[in-house]
Amino acid sequence: MARRLLLRAVDIHKLTLPTSARLCTHTPPAPLTLREQSNGIRRITLNDPRKRNALSLAMLQSLRQDILLDANSEDLRVIIISANGPVFSSGHDLKELTSLRGRGHHTQVFQACSEASLVSVSLSPPPPAVMTLIQDIPVPVIAMVNGVATAAGCQLVASCDIAMVTEKSTFATPGVNVGLFCSTPAVAIGRAVPKKVAMAMLFTGTPISAHDALLHGLVSKVVPEEHLEEETLAVAQRVCQASRPVVALGKATFHRQMAQGRDAAYATASQVMVDNLALRDGQEGIRAFIEKRKPVWSHAAEKAHD
Amino acid sequence: MARRLLLRAVDIHKLTLPTSARLCTHTPPAPLTLREQSNGIRRITLNDPRKRNALSLAMLQSLRQDILLDANSEDLRVIIISANGPVFSSGHDLKELTSLRGRGHHTQVFQACSEASLVSVSLSPPPPAVMTLIQDIPVPVIAMVNGVATAAGCQLVASCDIAMVTEKSTFATPGVNVGLFCSTPAVAIGRAVPKKVAMAMLFTGTPISAHDALLHGLVSKVVPEEHLEEETLAVAQRVCQASRPVVALGKATFHRQMAQGRDAAYATASQVMVDNLALRDGQEGIRAFIEKRKPVWSHAAEKAHD
Amino acid sequence: MARRLLLRAVDIHKLTLPTSARLCTHTPPAPLTLREQSNGIRRITLNDPRKRNALSLAMLQSLRQDILLDANSEDLRVIIISANGPVFSSGHDLKELTSLRGRGHHTQVFQACSEASLVSVSLSPPPPAVMTLIQDIPVPVIAMVNGVATAAGCQLVASCDIAMVTEKSTFATPGVNVGLFCSTPAVAIGRAVPKKVAMAMLFTGTPISAHDALLHGLVSKVVPEEHLEEETLAVAQRVCQASRPVVALGKATFHRQMAQGRDAAYATASQVMVDNLALRDGQEGIRAFIEKRKPVWSHAAEKAHD
Repeated sequence: MARRLLLRAVDIHKLTLPTSARLCTHTPPAPLTLREQSNGIRRITLNDPRKRNALSLAMLQSLRQDILLDANSEDLRVIIISANGPVFSSGHDLKELTSLRGRGHHTQVFQACSEASLVSVSLSPPPPAVMTLIQDIPVPVIAMVNGVATAAGCQLVASCDIAMVTEKSTFATPGVNVGLFCSTPAVAIGRAVPKKVAMAMLFTGTPISAHDALLHGLVSKVVPEEHLEEETLAVAQRVCQASRPVVALGKATFHRQMAQGRDAAYATASQVMVDNLALRDGQEGIRAFIEKRKPVWSHAAEKAHD
Repeated sequence: MARRLLLRAVDIHKLTLPTSARLCTHTPPAPLTLREQSNGIRRITLNDPRKRNALSLAMLQSLRQDILLDANSEDLRVIIISANGPVFSSGHDLKELTSLRGRGHHTQVFQACSEASLVSVSLSPPPPAVMTLIQDIPVPVIAMVNGVATAAGCQLVASCDIAMVTEKSTFATPGVNVGLFCSTPAVAIGRAVPKKVAMAMLFTGTPISAHDALLHGLVSKVVPEEHLEEETLAVAQRVCQASRPVVALGKATFHRQMAQGRDAAYATASQVMVDNLALRDGQEGIRAFIEKRKPVWSHAAEKAHD
Repeated sequence: MARRLLLRAVDIHKLTLPTSARLCTHTPPAPLTLREQSNGIRRITLNDPRKRNALSLAMLQSLRQDILLDANSEDLRVIIISANGPVFSSGHDLKELTSLRGRGHHTQVFQACSEASLVSVSLSPPPPAVMTLIQDIPVPVIAMVNGVATAAGCQLVASCDIAMVTEKSTFATPGVNVGLFCSTPAVAIGRAVPKKVAMAMLFTGTPISAHDALLHGLVSKVVPEEHLEEETLAVAQRVCQASRPVVALGKATFHRQMAQGRDAAYATASQVMVDNLALRDGQEGIRAFIEKRKPVWSHAAEKAHD
């Protein structure tokens, strides 16, 4: 029931049709993504099943907007990205990558997806790319996958902090078959699974099962289809039980130290531990533990009064 | 039997009580760690089960002392770290991390644990941190785990070169639940397992089983409880059968080259291979192999006479 | 049948015996490696089973020559490296590493195997080392393993892009037992499997099974012995169905971006995606996909006419 409620919630703000259209009896075109939020959990649903939830430029922009909206608000604690239809996402929309569209358009697509620092086609600095944005925002992002995730769709799963998937889900980077090697997906996938696993996927395009994806670290948990919603929400709720600034500090530090050598990483992380303890919620947590009671988080990124 | 002998051996040197105390009939307070060494194998046992073998500052200092003592002696060939009681180690002692203790004390704890280069609270250079010391000393360190290892306790397992664990052992980084994200444990764990496995542990605090820990590379082998001692000693004895300087050179080179890019790593390692061959034991090993006899190691870090 | 054909094909060019020898009735000495190529698939077979396919200097040079020959020809699309006999390869020939041979010879062996930039014994720049060459040539290299792969033999498997192995295959780095720590194999193996898996192999010399090798990412697939040829050829044929310059660009980019930090990696890969789309085969692939027909590759590394 919770599921139907969440999946049916239509994101009113996305309907930017003129008033006349809203009043007419025709069904308005469905928005590319649906966004819904309650109790700190934002759910974003890829909603273009007829196009296999292709990450078209418009889809990427809609997804980015849904992630970025009030990303620093204390009301947002975790994001779940899922999809309508049997395909989680099939990756880039190849119709946008023909020579007719031209190099400028191609560049724009990869900017919106993976990388913000390619030479911009406009003079203003480009907005953050979806894949790196997912790692850089202060709340954990969970992919909830029930179906096929290929190419940039597989990259999206690899880019999320946690991925909950059903047994029937499969993962592939088949770009090589259409003459477009999955080089940007390989950035995320090559950092998620052992190199040989990544290379076999990239060179052959052959899908791997949910089980193999778990085995090699591409996903976090495989669950039966009927439990996917429930188990994913349970993980999201666990994240919500923690202090927001503590999670934000932890997430940022994880990605930062992982890019460093061991000694520099320990210098970074040790300093962060001391800073974490100085947070109001850092001290509340320790105190509650010692007093054997549940902590009461302020969720404020403030230092405690010593 | 070997087990009982080893575990009961009390480390006399740790009993620093005044003579009067030793003579009285009361049981003296147990030392935080026990140390015992025979045939090249040093066994260090965390011995504060009532406090779940918390890595208090005193515990860390005792552990460091046990590791460092005569670390360069030819008599020391391998170290096994185990624990008394059902908890291998629960990580930092949270009572030492309250605001009452203050930032200076917090810094000291993380220095002793993970990182020696934080601004020192004293003027003298800080001693090496336990977690990096384990990787930097010239002999392999084996964690022998039969129980729960959490937070810095899990970091300790991740930091050892080899980890032998029982089926009932579990591993978790639950700091997020008490408002202290496991950022320093994440340095070791994030370098031991796939990133998504690490992040799920860090964001949810949920424990993983010994089986999953093996699957993802956090531990080296899972054995039935009744074989833990035997199998761990067998691995330690295998290490002892090798030449000490050869193992020392190999261990140092492994960590050094892993921090480099591929070509620099091969330059490092190829040079080391030539140096290894120039060692007296390097030449003895090759000669013994060709002559189909057991090698007789000198264990001396000397070049062979050409 | 295909199998017998391929394995029996003797590489005539390797028989560099004087004419008299060819005419006499004695069996000529077998070449160290066999090379055979058809339909884009080059098969190289280690052919010194009596010496357990040791990677002697001569074997390394023969292997290098077989890999390098016409490596940039459009006729070459994928390489399969396999071995005759029950041992895939036992690593370096220890007889070449005795003190009698001297430091100069040792250096030459490691140069030919792993590293080209050690100070050269001659004035001319040394040829590329086999292990890095495998990663640096423009076509994928598949190891097809049916037996034991140890030390530099295990490094060879780890260095290939894909490894297909039988259930009975085993993998080990036992150098420590003969006083020569597997430091160069550790460069490839430490980058293929989790660190603790690598260290347990290196410190104990204990072999791991094909199953464990798969679990930890050292190999790509484990198949029954009777299907090894068939399944390996199927993977090779899949690679051949793709466009050569697309695969070459993808392979080079994978190794390049994996050595970079995330943001630099995305900058590299995003640029490559745009370049890939500008290739003639890049555009042909997209067009064929949209027109729902099979692509017809030019295999030419040329830009499409816009």
